[in-house]
Amino acid sequence: MDDAVAKAFKNEGLEDFELIIAHTDMVTESMDMAPGMSYRQLAKKAVVANLSDLASKGARPLGLLFAWGLPSGFKVEYVIELARGLNEGALQYGTYILGGDLGEAKELTLAGFAMGLSRRDGLMRRSSAKPGQILALTGLMGWTALGFKILFEGLEAPRKLKDKALKSLYEPIARVREGQALAKLGGSRIGCMDISDGLAISLHQLASSSMVGAVLTNIPMDENLKAFALDQGLDPLSLCLYEGGEEYELLISLPEEVFEEARKSLSSLGCILHEIGYVTAERRIILKAEGREEEIKPLGWEHLREKPKIR
Amino acid sequence: MDDAVAKAFKNEGLEDFELIIAHTDMVTESMDMAPGMSYRQLAKKAVVANLSDLASKGARPLGLLFAWGLPSGFKVEYVIELARGLNEGALQYGTYILGGDLGEAKELTLAGFAMGLSRRDGLMRRSSAKPGQILALTGLMGWTALGFKILFEGLEAPRKLKDKALKSLYEPIARVREGQALAKLGGSRIGCMDISDGLAISLHQLASSSMVGAVLTNIPMDENLKAFALDQGLDPLSLCLYEGGEEYELLISLPEEVFEEARKSLSSLGCILHEIGYVTAERRIILKAEGREEEIKPLGWEHLREKPKIR
Repeated sequence: MDDAVAKAFKNEGLEDFELIIAHTDMVTESMDMAPGMSYRQLAKKAVVANLSDLASKGARPLGLLFAWGLPSGFKVEYVIELARGLNEGALQYGTYILGGDLGEAKELTLAGFAMGLSRRDGLMRRSSAKPGQILALTGLMGWTALGFKILFEGLEAPRKLKDKALKSLYEPIARVREGQALAKLGGSRIGCMDISDGLAISLHQLASSSMVGAVLTNIPMDENLKAFALDQGLDPLSLCLYEGGEEYELLISLPEEVFEEARKSLSSLGCILHEIGYVTAERRIILKAEGREEEIKPLGWEHLREKPKIR
Repeated sequence: MDDAVAKAFKNEGLEDFELIIAHTDMVTESMDMAPGMSYRQLAKKAVVANLSDLASKGARPLGLLFAWGLPSGFKVEYVIELARGLNEGALQYGTYILGGDLGEAKELTLAGFAMGLSRRDGLMRRSSAKPGQILALTGLMGWTALGFKILFEGLEAPRKLKDKALKSLYEPIARVREGQALAKLGGSRIGCMDISDGLAISLHQLASSSMVGAVLTNIPMDENLKAFALDQGLDPLSLCLYEGGEEYELLISLPEEVFEEARKSLSSLGCILHEIGYVTAERRIILKAEGREEEIKPLGWEHLREKPKIR
């Protein structure tokens, strides 16, 4: 690194960063485009899916590339919608679409590639959860599960609930600023991953990577959604644990002494940090909530294992 | 950049680099897998396609990510073949597969992302060609064109020619070390791009980006291939200009005083640098060879414009 580069990095406010974080995530029309979703929304979701991984590492996004696969005869107006969605998504998170590749494919495919920067001591990993730490989530559970039931099982829901559920699927958000705020509190002490494959499977992945277990004492859920689920004979906890996915909230394991500071820091970004349980040395994942005590199964989205819902 | 990073970069021999170069290129089974090609070869080709862009910039590869889209029911043995091909390809060019994403898609899709490093004054661009410079190519033309004719038009060719032609399609190579060697001679003075879309269209793209024209005086071609083409009533120059593609040779525009040094430098890497013409201020692309004088048309591979051959 010569002086000119050090200076350029300083001018960009990048002089503190030491690691390049790179991530890729592919969306296809058949797997990721829920009924009723627009191409603009699909493109924004592709941005969110890629940035979410940077978020879970606490990295600052540098930019995105997208390789486009377009089917023969794909309408130009949809190409414009997709481009608009990619740019809007990048802008929303303060980053850029830097370039890409355009090719032909049997179905619409957007393969994204996100680069970010991190400090060595700010990097959050899946493997950093420690027994005694608090488990937390950056958002409420159950909305995407309700969305899936509405779209794929014909469940009828009141307008307000339906709108929120569909919005959670059509316009997911990534916790990019939240991840960076957590990293500043000492990322190497914090275990983190996003829950895009579902809460239960993500808990198992975090625990397995960290060689720990967990007890869940609380799953944060909107009261109206919970009442509606019970009214429909649905199990609210099961909805949140097993029937969601496509949520880009962060699952976080952090020392008790950092929790309050983290809560305040995220609160200033408009994000409520929900305590959901704690990490154990015993390698089991247990639900102890609402009078129940049971093992949480490692179920959730697994590619090529089950019939796709939408992704 | 703090001292630790500067030191880490120095240890890796990276302290001279200033720019991150990022590139993406997607291959799909329907578009990129020629008849008779193995999955291992397809995966290596995906690596080559991605590294070739770094090569044309003169960048040193840092690593690759791949997002995989697999159709339901895709055989595990093919997955292993693909993984082997990716790793072999990366190793061959002294770089690494750093990670990726696995998902389901309607057809086999490999979206690659290559990252590399470059010095600011080493970066070669499409837009750097200047009138008076020499135009050069890193390899012989016509082999992939013959391959396409054998595979898609049923042309019969002698064994030796057929083997070479198919190898050029099944196992293309990227000029990664060659690109870096050129960059060391002063990349900012050198115009460069790969000719993966075909020679004629690439000449037009280089010229257009640089706001120049070109005169082609010589198209390097194997003598036996040329004799065979003439024997078959095929126009050798047309084969090279318009009917190839999928070649990852570099098209280079460089100052006359650098040419000899560049030739020697590439020769030490086992690569012959062929002079093919010169750059002009007049913005036309002219063929003046073998008694012919004609305009070279901007024809070549364009996605979504014509029926695919293989890519």
